[in-house]
Amino acid sequence: VSDAPARPAASSGDHAIDRFLDESRDRRLESWKELLRIPSVSALPEHAADCRRAAEHVAATLRRIGMEHVDISDTGGHPIVYADWLHAEGAPTAVAYAHYDVQPVDPVAEWHHPPFEPEVADGRIYARGASDDKSSVGILLQAAEALLATRGSLPINLRFVFEGEEETTSEHLEPWLAANRERLGADVALICDSGFFAGNVPAVTVGLRGIMYAQIDVRGPFQDVHSGSYGGAIENPANALARIIAGLKDPDGRVLIPGFYDDVVPLSDADRAAYAALPFDEDEFRGSLEVPALVGEPGYTVLERRSGRPTLDVNGIWGGFQGEGSKTIIPGSAHAKVSSRLVADQDPERIFDLLRDHVLRIAPPGVTVEVRDLGSGRPTLTPIDDPWARAFATALGETFGQEAVFVREGGSIPFVAAFETLLGLPVVILGFTPPDGNFHAPNEWMDLANFEGGVRSMVRYWDGLASGV
Amino acid sequence: VSDAPARPAASSGDHAIDRFLDESRDRRLESWKELLRIPSVSALPEHAADCRRAAEHVAATLRRIGMEHVDISDTGGHPIVYADWLHAEGAPTAVAYAHYDVQPVDPVAEWHHPPFEPEVADGRIYARGASDDKSSVGILLQAAEALLATRGSLPINLRFVFEGEEETTSEHLEPWLAANRERLGADVALICDSGFFAGNVPAVTVGLRGIMYAQIDVRGPFQDVHSGSYGGAIENPANALARIIAGLKDPDGRVLIPGFYDDVVPLSDADRAAYAALPFDEDEFRGSLEVPALVGEPGYTVLERRSGRPTLDVNGIWGGFQGEGSKTIIPGSAHAKVSSRLVADQDPERIFDLLRDHVLRIAPPGVTVEVRDLGSGRPTLTPIDDPWARAFATALGETFGQEAVFVREGGSIPFVAAFETLLGLPVVILGFTPPDGNFHAPNEWMDLANFEGGVRSMVRYWDGLASGV
Repeated sequence: VSDAPARPAASSGDHAIDRFLDESRDRRLESWKELLRIPSVSALPEHAADCRRAAEHVAATLRRIGMEHVDISDTGGHPIVYADWLHAEGAPTAVAYAHYDVQPVDPVAEWHHPPFEPEVADGRIYARGASDDKSSVGILLQAAEALLATRGSLPINLRFVFEGEEETTSEHLEPWLAANRERLGADVALICDSGFFAGNVPAVTVGLRGIMYAQIDVRGPFQDVHSGSYGGAIENPANALARIIAGLKDPDGRVLIPGFYDDVVPLSDADRAAYAALPFDEDEFRGSLEVPALVGEPGYTVLERRSGRPTLDVNGIWGGFQGEGSKTIIPGSAHAKVSSRLVADQDPERIFDLLRDHVLRIAPPGVTVEVRDLGSGRPTLTPIDDPWARAFATALGETFGQEAVFVREGGSIPFVAAFETLLGLPVVILGFTPPDGNFHAPNEWMDLANFEGGVRSMVRYWDGLASGV
Repeated sequence: VSDAPARPAASSGDHAIDRFLDESRDRRLESWKELLRIPSVSALPEHAADCRRAAEHVAATLRRIGMEHVDISDTGGHPIVYADWLHAEGAPTAVAYAHYDVQPVDPVAEWHHPPFEPEVADGRIYARGASDDKSSVGILLQAAEALLATRGSLPINLRFVFEGEEETTSEHLEPWLAANRERLGADVALICDSGFFAGNVPAVTVGLRGIMYAQIDVRGPFQDVHSGSYGGAIENPANALARIIAGLKDPDGRVLIPGFYDDVVPLSDADRAAYAALPFDEDEFRGSLEVPALVGEPGYTVLERRSGRPTLDVNGIWGGFQGEGSKTIIPGSAHAKVSSRLVADQDPERIFDLLRDHVLRIAPPGVTVEVRDLGSGRPTLTPIDDPWARAFATALGETFGQEAVFVREGGSIPFVAAFETLLGLPVVILGFTPPDGNFHAPNEWMDLANFEGGVRSMVRYWDGLASGV
């Protein structure tokens, strides 16, 4: 790669490994490109064989570098690839997760390079999956390869789990984890599917919000009726729905559902200090969204509101006439999709029950109201002083020469909670992608300096874990 | 007509006229059928020539029966037919309105008879326009014909205005009225485009609600954004819209816009007695709409709420994701169509201003809000003790042998107010169609007994006006 990045060259802290990585760079890049060339789009049935090819490529690499018990599990969907290396007696055991499937490439006309012909330019590599999440697959494989090639061993015990359905809701992962609970014994789960903070600052993700997603259906007259003939005598389902939604949150943004906040883990002083340490320009953020003002729950900063506190948002609303001009009807029904982003220790099923009860309690008498559960995901939270997370932050800082930040994601990755609840493991969520890498969009790219630093910091992290957390 | 109606035979109160009408019945029916056969669908450009044919048919009939100054005015749309007879010295002058255009016939497959091949069965005549509003055209023409044929004169001075664009918002009527204000001098306007009350009870319509129709546009982020990444930090336009709509009406249905009720003419004791006298079964009404309860402004009956009091209804609402399942976005914008049915003396333009000001006042700070006027119509109200209306009720009662009721319509006929405001006339809104005559629907029909009674009660009404109101 000719265009060197501005960042100081990363080091794994082990000269032999650094030398191995420097000398093998072109070969490793070529090997990773082979994976990037496989169009493993999990959402599209016509790419099912490509997903299997990607799984087989990963399995072949695992065997080549010296991992053991390499196994391709049929799940009913796309396969899960497992491998381990368990000879680091007395050292901790980590189960490391990444996914080899990718998003569809539409609109393909907006790509400057064909999405499955990876191309290097300006210190970046462009390809679908280059960041999300084949960067993690490549980094995990190459870190293990470097260690096994130079030392003949790993510093800790490692189990790899590579999934092929992350972009389509990980349908078969949780059953597979449950079925393999016995052989997945470990001390920590490393979920490799996040990235760096804004400005490409090394980051450890210590929390993900959960989600509760519901639909509210309000029904009035048996069909749309004339607003002149009936207006004034019957409840209007759209007015009723508006009143219900207005009754879910106060004007400041605090959720009014009784019990909603009961199980929320409050932000600690350390949490709030971590938020405050993040580089963030409120005005730039507001301007980028083109909103007149940022608003949210009183007593919290914008960043805290975006990931450290629960929310309630209408995701969609509809009913009656939506065309040009005017049509004088009272809608027969009105509907809304409503979801809450949840934080630890809120339970999505309990929150749904609370929402449903509250909606039915405040619904006006002239309509019938139904509240339906459209899916949920549990929040996850690793305490900010968790030693597994701290150790990764230390490795990041030493490798990249820049102190890592602790962040929570506002979004949800529902399967992550399964590692906590099914396997009983603390979870560290990590990744090396720049935040502007066009995930799920045309011209997805990965910063090659981040990739190389990722391999080195993974080596350093595992070395660090071997000397105790 | 073989199947006689249950109602007692109507009489005009003038034996010679009754005899003329009895003897000419078949000929009159055939003449009216000629008008019904003309597919004068004003909404469809391919029927423009048919609309002109209908106007010419009406004009020819006016000339044949002895009306004067018969004139077909080109309006830029479909023509307006004018005629008068002004030789009743000392008697009042009425301007009588009806429209010769009709609604489209779709879905035509649901008609049992071709819509423009009028067919008599069971005392009814089936055809598009048979009730709305060619029944009024036929009744006015035949009443004048009977009087001129038997007496050689009319008891009052009459001006006829037959319009061809009522079903397409009467675009050119108001300019034509304004341009012809001088030659339209009169004492009362008879708007012949309503009908009988439920159960086919003779009725005088003394009020129409007006309308104010607006759109509220709430804009947040420049596009739909991820509810995980942004939820909690920005105002959600759909939540904001719900809060705005909830702020327009209290839970009981009373409008919260300051000043909204300022100009409402309160219901008098006589008004309320007239409402109370109407045959109406609340439970049947509720059941027919399939709503769990009837709700509305406290202190008023269901019928009063439906036409005697103003309303505020959402006619449509939309924003964000409306598909199956879940999509985790904060909508970039949310929208609602909101309209108020107005009663005298509310001014639609003032009400729009009050709505807009109130919406902007209660709009939350994190969004931009726009309120747009999508059209309006003024309410009309003839006092229930108005002599012109009372005289028509008397004529109806005497002709049909059944006491007439005074009703207000909940809907709006915007052009009616122009007769009040442009010509400065009291307005009586009348018609003879049964309330279940399938106006605007397949298998429109007119009760022939109502039609014949209509001709006779019109004669009796004009005779009554000649002896003073």
